[in-house]
Amino acid sequence: MKLENDLLLRAARGQKIERTPVWLMRQAGRILPEYRQIRNALSGFKELVETPQLAAEVTIQPVDILNVDAAIIFSDILVVPESMGLSYEMVEKKGPYFSKTIKTSNDIKNISIPDVHDNLSYVFEAIKITKSELKGKVPLIGFAGAPWTIFAYMIEGQGSKTFSKAKSFLYREPELSHQLLGLITETTIAYLKAQISSGADLVQLFDSWAGILTHQQYEEFGMKYVYKICEAIHEAPVTVFAKGAYSALENMKGLKCETIGLDWNMSISEAKTIFQNQKTLQGNLDPCVLYGDYNLIKQKTKEMLNSFAGHRHIANLGHGVYPDVSPDHVKCFIETVKSN
Amino acid sequence: MKLENDLLLRAARGQKIERTPVWLMRQAGRILPEYRQIRNALSGFKELVETPQLAAEVTIQPVDILNVDAAIIFSDILVVPESMGLSYEMVEKKGPYFSKTIKTSNDIKNISIPDVHDNLSYVFEAIKITKSELKGKVPLIGFAGAPWTIFAYMIEGQGSKTFSKAKSFLYREPELSHQLLGLITETTIAYLKAQISSGADLVQLFDSWAGILTHQQYEEFGMKYVYKICEAIHEAPVTVFAKGAYSALENMKGLKCETIGLDWNMSISEAKTIFQNQKTLQGNLDPCVLYGDYNLIKQKTKEMLNSFAGHRHIANLGHGVYPDVSPDHVKCFIETVKSN
Repeated sequence: MKLENDLLLRAARGQKIERTPVWLMRQAGRILPEYRQIRNALSGFKELVETPQLAAEVTIQPVDILNVDAAIIFSDILVVPESMGLSYEMVEKKGPYFSKTIKTSNDIKNISIPDVHDNLSYVFEAIKITKSELKGKVPLIGFAGAPWTIFAYMIEGQGSKTFSKAKSFLYREPELSHQLLGLITETTIAYLKAQISSGADLVQLFDSWAGILTHQQYEEFGMKYVYKICEAIHEAPVTVFAKGAYSALENMKGLKCETIGLDWNMSISEAKTIFQNQKTLQGNLDPCVLYGDYNLIKQKTKEMLNSFAGHRHIANLGHGVYPDVSPDHVKCFIETVKSN
Repeated sequence: MKLENDLLLRAARGQKIERTPVWLMRQAGRILPEYRQIRNALSGFKELVETPQLAAEVTIQPVDILNVDAAIIFSDILVVPESMGLSYEMVEKKGPYFSKTIKTSNDIKNISIPDVHDNLSYVFEAIKITKSELKGKVPLIGFAGAPWTIFAYMIEGQGSKTFSKAKSFLYREPELSHQLLGLITETTIAYLKAQISSGADLVQLFDSWAGILTHQQYEEFGMKYVYKICEAIHEAPVTVFAKGAYSALENMKGLKCETIGLDWNMSISEAKTIFQNQKTLQGNLDPCVLYGDYNLIKQKTKEMLNSFAGHRHIANLGHGVYPDVSPDHVKCFIETVKSN
């Protein structure tokens, strides 16, 4: 089906666009009362993730309500480690919790590369329903966690300020680490390919914990696998968002991907100098700006757009939208980009 | 009293040294069983902070046990907001909690610049006892939180992943923010001067939450006040440690301080290029390396020392030592620096 609005895809490929496209990380869920109504009728977050019809519904909500230029499938990066043998719960107000974690080589032996079509069929089903219900209005983004970030949860078993268990595992067990990262990478490639064949028009890799590794560790255990994934995906444009990976930006020039996400702390001018219009940059308004009044939101959004001027750009926040931001403030951000 | 070992002070001032001095952030407390024995006999963390004789005792422990080249007074950055009118509790396993926070201009009206000599006398008393009991063995480091970090706790009332309340206060109320930051700065200058006159040989500013501000915000609300403090302190060398402030490093050249702390993610080669031996660099071994075996600790410590070679340097971790690291591993780090 031909897309009515394909700005995002043209921007990602560096083609001519009439205006900068805009969407928000975490736009599906969290901030919309229409989302909370659906969510509150369920047993929990995971029921929503695993119910394709409802996942599709909350995926489409921001397209209709906020008027963004793309939908992103409502799901969770942790469905991948779960499909590999580590199930998790999403604990209300606390976050994810894995009762089993990886501690030894024996634990890794119990990790399998799943048949994603079988194990994660609910995600592909949600993508198919979404694509059908979107009726070509805007592109649909698929996503996965980058291998290091997934690895971090598999070792740590939950969120952490320091992820020191996962980091020290890299130091203590480099070979086992590479083994596990390899398994995650293979699963992720199959998972993203299946998302694309189900209908995703673009896929984004989230390396949420890139910023806690040293430069050297991120090169060895992070970027290496991001590179492999980018190299394997030819079916759709790829975006890499490695939060906090300031010193890795230079080396990301070599990734075979179309778009690089910038967090709100990354310097736009530095990124422009590095990427020289050879990739599209995505981001990077500070999500906290949306707590300000309309004037502030307009002013900071315009400043951000001006800073990216002359470079391939997709407008977004520099991180997921915060849950307690008013939808009207989000709309103001979106409208400011669209009318710029 | 003349110091037996003044390596730290000479290194900070860029004078000739026989070898690189070494100490660890958070060396006092946490990791030592001797510390936990004292701590467990008390009602809580704050009782230890407020009892000069005991604070002095745990300050000296790492000098005797770990053989570091400096002591750092056992205290807490949050004694400053407390002295200004916001008392806090240290909740076991959760962290600091302020029952009153700053929300409006009225709340700021109730904030006072205290007579630190009166309000924080227990810190100065602890410094005096420590100096006397150290008998000139090694220098004593005093410290304070940088104004933005203290401000963040005064608005937020507790730790936070995003400090979004504090950040959005900067956006929504820039004038009130500057007013409060000014009050904190004035208090901090008086506090550090009193630490020095009580015996601290060097003082360090911790800007723990520098990294969550955009470049522009950190310049306007962070660095500006760090600059003021550095400008006001002539009585002893000053170290500035702004965690995560990657894009601010360039501008830190202009600070009137002797030493810049680097976190473990900061690029040593980039810092050397920026500072050109005009300031001393402190850091920056990844604290997770200390979870590795002795070979790994030695190897990574030597790599770190080699990377700093040719530049003024004080060896340290790139963050506070983690609580569950074995003291023997810490000793291995210290011995490796000393025998390099």
